[in-house]
Amino acid sequence: MLFNIKFHEGEPIYIQVYKYIKDMIDNGMLPYLSKLPSTREMASIMNISRSTVMNVYEKLEEEGLVNTLKGKGTFVAKININNNKEWSINWKSKLNNYALEAEGMDIMKHEKLYKKGMISFKSIAPDEDYFPMEEVKRAFANLISLEGNRILNYGYAKGYKPLIDFLREYMSDKGVNLKNKDIIITNGFTEGFNIVLSSITKKGDNILCENPTHNTAIKIMKLHGLNLIGVPMNKDGMDINSLKNILKDNRAKIAYLIPSYHNPTGIVMSYKSREQVYNILKDYNVPIIEDGFNEELQHLGAHIAPMATIAGEENSVIYIGSFSKILFPGIRIGWICADSKLIEGMESVKRSENIHTSALDQGILYQYMISGEFSRYLKRVRNIYREKYDLARNLAEKYIPNEYIYGDGGLYIFIKLKGINSRKLLERCSKRAVIFTPGDIFYTDAGGEDTFRLAFSRTSLEDIETGIKIIGEEAKFK
Amino acid sequence: MLFNIKFHEGEPIYIQVYKYIKDMIDNGMLPYLSKLPSTREMASIMNISRSTVMNVYEKLEEEGLVNTLKGKGTFVAKININNNKEWSINWKSKLNNYALEAEGMDIMKHEKLYKKGMISFKSIAPDEDYFPMEEVKRAFANLISLEGNRILNYGYAKGYKPLIDFLREYMSDKGVNLKNKDIIITNGFTEGFNIVLSSITKKGDNILCENPTHNTAIKIMKLHGLNLIGVPMNKDGMDINSLKNILKDNRAKIAYLIPSYHNPTGIVMSYKSREQVYNILKDYNVPIIEDGFNEELQHLGAHIAPMATIAGEENSVIYIGSFSKILFPGIRIGWICADSKLIEGMESVKRSENIHTSALDQGILYQYMISGEFSRYLKRVRNIYREKYDLARNLAEKYIPNEYIYGDGGLYIFIKLKGINSRKLLERCSKRAVIFTPGDIFYTDAGGEDTFRLAFSRTSLEDIETGIKIIGEEAKFK
Repeated sequence: MLFNIKFHEGEPIYIQVYKYIKDMIDNGMLPYLSKLPSTREMASIMNISRSTVMNVYEKLEEEGLVNTLKGKGTFVAKININNNKEWSINWKSKLNNYALEAEGMDIMKHEKLYKKGMISFKSIAPDEDYFPMEEVKRAFANLISLEGNRILNYGYAKGYKPLIDFLREYMSDKGVNLKNKDIIITNGFTEGFNIVLSSITKKGDNILCENPTHNTAIKIMKLHGLNLIGVPMNKDGMDINSLKNILKDNRAKIAYLIPSYHNPTGIVMSYKSREQVYNILKDYNVPIIEDGFNEELQHLGAHIAPMATIAGEENSVIYIGSFSKILFPGIRIGWICADSKLIEGMESVKRSENIHTSALDQGILYQYMISGEFSRYLKRVRNIYREKYDLARNLAEKYIPNEYIYGDGGLYIFIKLKGINSRKLLERCSKRAVIFTPGDIFYTDAGGEDTFRLAFSRTSLEDIETGIKIIGEEAKFK
Repeated sequence: MLFNIKFHEGEPIYIQVYKYIKDMIDNGMLPYLSKLPSTREMASIMNISRSTVMNVYEKLEEEGLVNTLKGKGTFVAKININNNKEWSINWKSKLNNYALEAEGMDIMKHEKLYKKGMISFKSIAPDEDYFPMEEVKRAFANLISLEGNRILNYGYAKGYKPLIDFLREYMSDKGVNLKNKDIIITNGFTEGFNIVLSSITKKGDNILCENPTHNTAIKIMKLHGLNLIGVPMNKDGMDINSLKNILKDNRAKIAYLIPSYHNPTGIVMSYKSREQVYNILKDYNVPIIEDGFNEELQHLGAHIAPMATIAGEENSVIYIGSFSKILFPGIRIGWICADSKLIEGMESVKRSENIHTSALDQGILYQYMISGEFSRYLKRVRNIYREKYDLARNLAEKYIPNEYIYGDGGLYIFIKLKGINSRKLLERCSKRAVIFTPGDIFYTDAGGEDTFRLAFSRTSLEDIETGIKIIGEEAKFK
């Protein structure tokens, strides 16, 4: 125990106390800046007189071991630590290829970032102004009153049971057949996709995907050492003939698809196309990772069946869901719905990577979901985003010289310019405080230099108008 | 827009409406179980008479396309999905080595698990009964009133700024020199350790560690394909002579150490030993990953300086901190404190793996930490755990035939039995509803078969006594 001194005979008490404390400072038990008990407390702890303690503290101060600050107390002045700087490691040079590639593909470090006052068409995050905060507070209160302190202790790698059960029903409502399927909760889509690739792919595998596709997905696939085989898109999504031709010549381990509000094009694939793509991939035995991204933005009760639904009892689709582009991306909750045996393996991967996703966040999301408020929230934000979409689309058609504009609603449109390099356009626009995302980062090959994504989820109607007009003006000076 | 029908001449309205809705069902726009608007609503949406809608719904029902449930509404009865099960993938066989190894080393799947009514000495999680729930509620309320809805939108990969700033001070209070150092927030220690290894090691690298050591760390190091070089321990931690000998013969990329409340032995290395180990590793230019695990359990203001403090201005220590064995493991917050350049690289790795740690959880933890309640909480639980430790240690010494018992306080002790196989002992004890963690899972080689970890953080004083006596009885029948 601390200050648990045993006195011996033949040496003054104050010397013994002095040596005892000095030892503690010297051997690091009392580190730099730690506070000693007050003289009164110390006297009581050691069962000695207060004046003895005062003598000791004075002596310690004289020797520079402690400092007494008026009204604040006595603090350790230094500890015997290494003040050399002989050992200097160049950590930058110690980073491995994985970390260097992650840095190299980190758009936060290489792309134009938003600065205050700018009109930004970059963010596809939901507008937090519409978050239902009162319901979140209620969800937290309900959770704590239901689960108490348990919710703050360790949970399960697969996730918080009530949330999993809720999501089973949620997936079932989408028409997904859950026989022999299971769900695991992840830290958002990003972790979900990483866990899937970590569990079933290996360096050098081929992976099919739309071209262009979600830039974060491209980064993750590349970080896993996969060969990306991009399939060109048309206005209804993946081009069926190109897909067939590519599959004739290439063996793909798996396919990654975003059928709804495809990022970056905003295309919602029709049911017919989904079915066609499913059947072609089935013919070639290429399982599907379906990014359920933003599916929720579709009109309530009228979404197009996800690939996971088309699969029926077949276990060929690994569906990754997330509400993050609609609701609360700050709490990082996503899920994977797939074959039970596969989920079992991924459960161990998840456990080894970070044990489990925050139980508190899962519980809050669950309580919020069962409150019934989500569908009201969706109705509200769909209308808001719809208005922004309509405006952005109409203005873009009118002001921006384009080959085509893609996007079936959602949070962004995708524009192919008429022979204009989008990075050069961005350069000019950013001088006028308008920014957007150049399309090349979404391409698996070197394409897309005349395209860009114009996202408006967090842009006001007024800024949408001003911004698009500016882009249009700058596009004329090509 | 949904139900946005345009009527044409030459066909009865009710047939047009029927075909329109049937089409939507056939092509998946109205999936299985989705609810149609009521006849009244639909009449208003389409601007037709209600009786027309009723005719249409009847016809749809006759054809088995919808079902009307009295008082509930009209629901889509089926969608045109694949009911075959021709495509069946054996996902178990598709798992790669990484996932299979993660499963193989997943103790949750291979070790005896707690069942209700058992006396368990397995868990080293904190006892949730002591969690300061009122303060957590206050922290949540303060956070929401301070940050509002922003806290639920995307945050930064490095973490929530106020929490990072708090932790800088916290590390500085431990005596750590933060010059050219930085902090990144992770999902607990487990993710922190994964990120460090992902960023600077490669398959086949040698890593030094204590033997025995934290089983999750062993799993993670092995999953990264590292060669573990275990250094034997004595009662003051890593054995200095063994360390020297091993370093003479082996080039290690890095060392992983747990100087405080080492898991599984509970040993707190003295300042002197820490300094010795630091200097030896310095001589061989082997940087250190310091697991700050449970350091907080040490007596307030009297902890032994971490290796990160001993390093002074040198940038040779990567410190990974976590409160998870003390406070709120359910919210998964840890941090890495290391050289700024290294943190910069790891920030991109973190972003690519899951974007960032829950901003809500970081905010709650921050608000809780600045409330000043943490030190009161620590005092309280230290006393509680101390009492459990004293009891467990005394009883174990008395009842369990041992070569030695390690542990300097903390949440567990580590027992080397006298020639008894701990798995066989566990087998017998579990029949009497007492379980503990056999020591072999903590060894980097095949050792430790006569050791076990006895953890008591969540075991009552009464159960500690009953349980240890039962272990003692069973140990006699070896």
